[in-house]
Amino acid sequence: MPADEFEVIRTLFAPLATSAGARGLVDDVAVISARGELVVTTDVIVEGVHFMPDDPVGAIAKKALRVNLSDLAGKGAKPAGALLTLVWPDTRPSEQIADFARGLGEDLSAYGIALWGGDTASTAGPMTVSITAFGEPYGARVPSRADARIGDDVWITGTLGDAWLGYLILKGEWDPSEPAHREALIARYRLPSPRTDMAALVARHANASMDVSDGLLGDAAKLAHASGLSLHLELALIPLSEPARAWKATSDGFGRLLDWGDDYEILFTADPKQRDSVAAAAAGARVTRIGSVALGEGVRTIDAAGCVTALEAPGGHAHKLGR
Amino acid sequence: MPADEFEVIRTLFAPLATSAGARGLVDDVAVISARGELVVTTDVIVEGVHFMPDDPVGAIAKKALRVNLSDLAGKGAKPAGALLTLVWPDTRPSEQIADFARGLGEDLSAYGIALWGGDTASTAGPMTVSITAFGEPYGARVPSRADARIGDDVWITGTLGDAWLGYLILKGEWDPSEPAHREALIARYRLPSPRTDMAALVARHANASMDVSDGLLGDAAKLAHASGLSLHLELALIPLSEPARAWKATSDGFGRLLDWGDDYEILFTADPKQRDSVAAAAAGARVTRIGSVALGEGVRTIDAAGCVTALEAPGGHAHKLGR
Repeated sequence: MPADEFEVIRTLFAPLATSAGARGLVDDVAVISARGELVVTTDVIVEGVHFMPDDPVGAIAKKALRVNLSDLAGKGAKPAGALLTLVWPDTRPSEQIADFARGLGEDLSAYGIALWGGDTASTAGPMTVSITAFGEPYGARVPSRADARIGDDVWITGTLGDAWLGYLILKGEWDPSEPAHREALIARYRLPSPRTDMAALVARHANASMDVSDGLLGDAAKLAHASGLSLHLELALIPLSEPARAWKATSDGFGRLLDWGDDYEILFTADPKQRDSVAAAAAGARVTRIGSVALGEGVRTIDAAGCVTALEAPGGHAHKLGR
Repeated sequence: MPADEFEVIRTLFAPLATSAGARGLVDDVAVISARGELVVTTDVIVEGVHFMPDDPVGAIAKKALRVNLSDLAGKGAKPAGALLTLVWPDTRPSEQIADFARGLGEDLSAYGIALWGGDTASTAGPMTVSITAFGEPYGARVPSRADARIGDDVWITGTLGDAWLGYLILKGEWDPSEPAHREALIARYRLPSPRTDMAALVARHANASMDVSDGLLGDAAKLAHASGLSLHLELALIPLSEPARAWKATSDGFGRLLDWGDDYEILFTADPKQRDSVAAAAAGARVTRIGSVALGEGVRTIDAAGCVTALEAPGGHAHKLGR
């Protein structure tokens, strides 16, 4: 396994760069042809902050890609291409780069996205993986966080809080009563499953939309703020997996399930007239109406009796910059 | 000065993101409209590898942008937009982020390029700055490293080796006899001046082209390899600044001037019929014919007597990946 950058690129990453514009990674640039608009997003993950040093290295590559694919899905866009920047620690065996490339290649195939280029460097610090992903909008417009309208339904895909429970299990702080749930929850923590299957639905039906990566409550607050409106969320409607329901029944920390993050679901708003169409377009995938958009600001959480109830302050697990 | 990511983005970076597609950095993505082809490049710089911890932080921001602008210039493209990924050390005062943003903003204005988006994170390791830059080709084609033709002239912009001498001065290993040269050489080490003024010339006249960032000899070897041909370089023609000529006269390390790197000039090949047009298009900017393209492989350096002569093995200062 070569430790030389040129050889690493030639032998491990160039085989993943199959589109003409990638120029086999022998040039300094990629040349991309866009028909109309391109959606572009970039997300970085850092060892010790966004993943653990002993996570399988192939899974780290997949996580770096998938957090970006989740952003594209949240904007109703189809994955097209990606740039990889890999900053590799001096102290980590370079043999592991092959595992990284293998994991990345598996996901590039699985999600139908091409490697267009990138850069590599070494560091005396933690592994740092930055990916820029490009997508083609499924619809005529790319929904932003700021496009919610008064009276819109609020929708969420999938279930929330499972990654948090997976993290608790890994830390040895909790165990599900049902052993079968253990691996499923850990997998949700380790590796997001971006809702690429919901991107076309989002493009067609959403007014405002974003992926939920920093916790439902914090991200809903961001959407509310950007739209200049309030989101009213009914707690009884929030979709939970079976182990999350069990955890909630034996704990008073419902808010933690909803503000910790790493869910990688899509939060969107849509006109109530679209209610049946949204359900039909989901084609069996889980999408749940959890509230509505109203005048005002911030997020209101409402309990089963219809009363506004406070959960602990939503903050998400925002990664602080600086000290 | 806020240490919260959301506030840092809102107060320091959002004011730099003035194009509509950047969505004021409040959305997760940028939406870019491309008419035809876009040239995309991404380069990362790491503290302790590509810059020194005590470099002025505004200059670090500029360097991160300029190494990417150099890639665009080398491909005959006009800067259009950039994504910034800033990974900030826990131990570095967050007040410095304002200086970083100020430096970045000055260069965005100076080079007429828009901030389209980005990401921020914290790290227990060194500062790591990754920029993805987008350019619009000036010409109908984007010259690659692989497009040299037999009989082409080999051209280089500017002068070579000045950044290396600036580095020697900073390390206290050399001093120019002329004090006025001191700051100029240090500036060339600290901050590349990408040859954006030569991009249109490159687009019009170059067959193969690339920017020289890892040393002339190593980068010429890459161009030769990609094109499947040999580059013959005449050492007497290689353009040197006055202090570099003085250094060369008192040293036997001519090869170091040419293989250390950080020159950020443009190396290109062009049909000899274009010779006069290239000189005219340079419009007074320095561009020098230093050799020709021939059958064979690799780089041949030829002395003033017309003899093939070996310099020490060209390696550039390739940044090793892994250990």
